[in-house]
Amino acid sequence: MSVLIVGSTALDSIKTPKAENPRLLGGSASHAAVAASFFSPVKMVGVVGNDFPKAYLKLYRKHRIDLAGLQIQEGKTFHWSGEYEVNMNNRRTLATELGVFEHFSPSLPDGHKSTPYVLLANIAPALQHHVLDQMWKPKFVIADTMDLWLNIALDDLLRLLKRIDALVLNDSEARQLTKTDNIVEAVRIIHKMGPRHVIIKKGEHGSILSNKDGLFMCPAYPLKQVKDPTGAGDSFVGALIGYLTANRGPVEKNLRRAMVHGSVVASFCCEGFGLTKTTQVRRKEILGRVRELEKLTRF
Amino acid sequence: MSVLIVGSTALDSIKTPKAENPRLLGGSASHAAVAASFFSPVKMVGVVGNDFPKAYLKLYRKHRIDLAGLQIQEGKTFHWSGEYEVNMNNRRTLATELGVFEHFSPSLPDGHKSTPYVLLANIAPALQHHVLDQMWKPKFVIADTMDLWLNIALDDLLRLLKRIDALVLNDSEARQLTKTDNIVEAVRIIHKMGPRHVIIKKGEHGSILSNKDGLFMCPAYPLKQVKDPTGAGDSFVGALIGYLTANRGPVEKNLRRAMVHGSVVASFCCEGFGLTKTTQVRRKEILGRVRELEKLTRF
Repeated sequence: MSVLIVGSTALDSIKTPKAENPRLLGGSASHAAVAASFFSPVKMVGVVGNDFPKAYLKLYRKHRIDLAGLQIQEGKTFHWSGEYEVNMNNRRTLATELGVFEHFSPSLPDGHKSTPYVLLANIAPALQHHVLDQMWKPKFVIADTMDLWLNIALDDLLRLLKRIDALVLNDSEARQLTKTDNIVEAVRIIHKMGPRHVIIKKGEHGSILSNKDGLFMCPAYPLKQVKDPTGAGDSFVGALIGYLTANRGPVEKNLRRAMVHGSVVASFCCEGFGLTKTTQVRRKEILGRVRELEKLTRF
Repeated sequence: MSVLIVGSTALDSIKTPKAENPRLLGGSASHAAVAASFFSPVKMVGVVGNDFPKAYLKLYRKHRIDLAGLQIQEGKTFHWSGEYEVNMNNRRTLATELGVFEHFSPSLPDGHKSTPYVLLANIAPALQHHVLDQMWKPKFVIADTMDLWLNIALDDLLRLLKRIDALVLNDSEARQLTKTDNIVEAVRIIHKMGPRHVIIKKGEHGSILSNKDGLFMCPAYPLKQVKDPTGAGDSFVGALIGYLTANRGPVEKNLRRAMVHGSVVASFCCEGFGLTKTTQVRRKEILGRVRELEKLTRF
């Protein structure tokens, strides 16, 4: 079984109070695909320009990511630059150059259309729809989103919610979407919008799952130092869908552990700039932190 | 075995976006004592004025709280009034009338001096010292504090940290005390200041314990509605010490479950104004939510 991951593939220039790193490998699909690759084979769909460093293509391949769906177009790769404040929670965008991403239309190779697990990583809801239009009866579809789409493409997003099994969004986005501060109430409202699994990310405070089995409170791994949280959410959902793809049985049975694995891969992501730490991590280290989280939450 | 609880006993006038409730029973000792009373006998030490409603004395007695250490003085009871914003996380003080609390000196009846478990609820560190000066070899001392004492009585507080087994404080206070945003680092610094158990409260995000067994991440019970969070932190630490007092064996063995019980009683506290909900709760309901939290965190 393999997982199809569609999203952005970008170059990120990231500034924190302690360091500045230009043109790192980034984008929601890159982070999610590498995170998923620890658990299952990944087919990634995205677009880059002909300025995209060969070293990054090599990095994808090192993680055995199927690049048949990665378009390489004449022009520049999507470039985002941003800056984090001292507490590493608030960030502001310094520049966004869309490049070839501006007219990106994800078209799936035939071999991709029957992939059973699908992650619609953060990307315009219209493109997420376009991917689903091409799919042939996927078993499980999870979508991520961001505040930008709530602001400029809400109708598309609301239509998407009726086509997916699970939605992942962060707490502030959940508040914006549901107009309530209470997370239990927010989750109830989002279920009514469509998805039977709702996952709310709360950064260092972990995440919450809601489905027919009730709520699950997934812990975040406590980190001594956060170097760069960019891509942590993408890593979370990537590892989550990778774990689900790899583990047979009903989704309901595996989803809690899938989230914990997501949480752990996200924690590694935060310990390096861009994908520098995630791409160095070994599966054994991931399983080690999962066991630690078991101990940290047992009472 | 019983627990000694020293702190403020007050009348709270609480305004939220939805309601206004004048002169409710409040204060750190009141909340903590009622919360502890679900698990063990409580000796409460505090001061009230002769305007203190008899109904509130009756309420303490209904919870079998020993009032031998409650001074009733000529004058007015400490009165606090505050207002919560819509999200119920930010509050501002509208008025503080100290009344008899201004010259409060907690003097312990002889029968109280050898109580094995002691909670120094939120009150000036100098008064917390004064209580410890009168105690005879307590088995376990836990102290709570607040930002006010970090601002105006830091030296007293730092001296206190060397005399206690456990410190409870909230995340913003931990940041202020340690000058770091990272909670793992903050905990490490606080251990160096004295206490071998450090508990950091994170409101709706739960709490964290650090001791020689490592970290424990205690969940908060997810509430559909928060009516009034006043006293939630006092209820948490009150139920925690009540549970420890009631359960034999080393503190290390019981502390995680003690925190979970604290978390649950705090959740009930938030569901009513002042102590109105907490005083209605039955032990069975508390144990029910503890079991729910077990299910909510299992993976």
